[in-house]
Amino acid sequence: MNITFCCTNTKAEPWLQGLRAALPGAHVEEWSPGAPSADHAVVWAPPQQFFDEQSQLRGVFNIGAGVDALLKLRLQAQASVVRLDDAGMSVQMAEYVCHAVIRHFREFDGYEADVKTGKWSYRKPRSRADFPVGVMGLGVLGERVARALRVFEFPVNGWSRSAKAVEGVRGFSGAAQFNDFLAATKVLVCLLPLTPDTRDIMRRETLSRLQHGGYVINVARGAHLVEEDLLALIDSGHLCGATLDVFRTEPLPGGHPFWQHPQITVTPHTSARTLREESIAQIAGKILALEQGQAIAGRVDTLRGY
Amino acid sequence: MNITFCCTNTKAEPWLQGLRAALPGAHVEEWSPGAPSADHAVVWAPPQQFFDEQSQLRGVFNIGAGVDALLKLRLQAQASVVRLDDAGMSVQMAEYVCHAVIRHFREFDGYEADVKTGKWSYRKPRSRADFPVGVMGLGVLGERVARALRVFEFPVNGWSRSAKAVEGVRGFSGAAQFNDFLAATKVLVCLLPLTPDTRDIMRRETLSRLQHGGYVINVARGAHLVEEDLLALIDSGHLCGATLDVFRTEPLPGGHPFWQHPQITVTPHTSARTLREESIAQIAGKILALEQGQAIAGRVDTLRGY
Repeated sequence: MNITFCCTNTKAEPWLQGLRAALPGAHVEEWSPGAPSADHAVVWAPPQQFFDEQSQLRGVFNIGAGVDALLKLRLQAQASVVRLDDAGMSVQMAEYVCHAVIRHFREFDGYEADVKTGKWSYRKPRSRADFPVGVMGLGVLGERVARALRVFEFPVNGWSRSAKAVEGVRGFSGAAQFNDFLAATKVLVCLLPLTPDTRDIMRRETLSRLQHGGYVINVARGAHLVEEDLLALIDSGHLCGATLDVFRTEPLPGGHPFWQHPQITVTPHTSARTLREESIAQIAGKILALEQGQAIAGRVDTLRGY
Repeated sequence: MNITFCCTNTKAEPWLQGLRAALPGAHVEEWSPGAPSADHAVVWAPPQQFFDEQSQLRGVFNIGAGVDALLKLRLQAQASVVRLDDAGMSVQMAEYVCHAVIRHFREFDGYEADVKTGKWSYRKPRSRADFPVGVMGLGVLGERVARALRVFEFPVNGWSRSAKAVEGVRGFSGAAQFNDFLAATKVLVCLLPLTPDTRDIMRRETLSRLQHGGYVINVARGAHLVEEDLLALIDSGHLCGATLDVFRTEPLPGGHPFWQHPQITVTPHTSARTLREESIAQIAGKILALEQGQAIAGRVDTLRGY
């Protein structure tokens, strides 16, 4: 069995070593143009040429949860596209989102600013009941985030394409219940896959429906959010801020208004990093399962887009 | 039944109104010197004169979890001293500690500093296995904090006076296992009651036993920590920082080195604030239970000190 590796912005050698150790029967090589087609590919943002040449792939394993960039390419129809499911990412997402929600709810930013000026001062405790958090997307990551928020007793709403029951979470689904979901939410967390249906889902018209004083946390894809609409709604006072890990253009361009905005916290697409060891173990297991005709988790419906 | 209210630094009127509404059969008044003794007292840091005069109290209800300040006074032996148990504080503690641990583990402070200088840069993800968190004190607050940390998959150690089993938490107890607990811990969280046994428990000798690169989170009492020892161990590089909510002197005095220390995060004793409504409901329920001779939670063993 031949495995080819083609991941932009990723040091190949540790992945190659890890895959060889996990799959001793396989030949694992880094892709080079003109190489014969392998059986399986481990990829991140490969060029179109890669798929044009690698025409016999049975499995294409994306080393991330989001396959939006991959699905923009022309792929051979017979190849199963597989995304990472969890592999250590859901706990990172839970950390990132809980940290951002708690920091905002408890005003730790404000306390920190006070302390920098030598000020010891109290703020009136806010009521948790006034901070319903709405999680868009209840896949592996979204569900984990929603459950973690419940540990801190926030009212949690969940919105998903098809109805999904998560204990302690008020469920909304489909286009029909989207406005109700927004109206019931003050802190909006985006964990949706990026598809034609979800692109620009956070824009003036939708964000205006959040409760007054709303807050946005985007940990999915930059294209989910119309950035100038967010800025306008913060300016108008309807929203009070945002924590953003993803952007329309990454790295965030110099001079972009988000960099220095006092109400926006920016992180460099680091909310849930791919962990090499966990990912290699998961991909190796799935390659073996696929070869044996077994069902595997994380298989992408290329028409649906995730 | 007469209830007297004597709480320093607390606006009396909303408490009086709340207690009157919760206990319609009782007379509830703010204490004034010379007033005859009531049956029960709701207190925070009262003067010694209060207890000298209020000699017939059956119940003394502290509107906080820590009774160290109260027990420095001479109290009538027949009075039951009762502290708040939970009343909305444990979830706040879980929030505060999880926020601090995640912020440190994920280096969000560092990312924020990068962003302020317009820098988009990654840091190598740290391994959770290298960040065992040790919680000292497994009462209502400590247990809640330990359980919340497990949600984020940190290895969690717990240390308590007497052995206590908490699911997923590696238990240590008593003086005999204290050094083992410290040696197994990188991030130390203090949630102990302040007693003669626990005063200065975080000092050079004990903090030196933490794993290299250790971190301290104190949300109990300032007197648990020898402040100059913490500073010396940060200077030496054995510890890498601290998040502190409580101090030997509060408010933290102007010019104290903690204010501007780049590795120390200071908050103004705000980790778990007393929530008035929850506290009134709890105290009113306990007064009624005490009057009926029922057992109540949060009764303080004045010899043990908590």
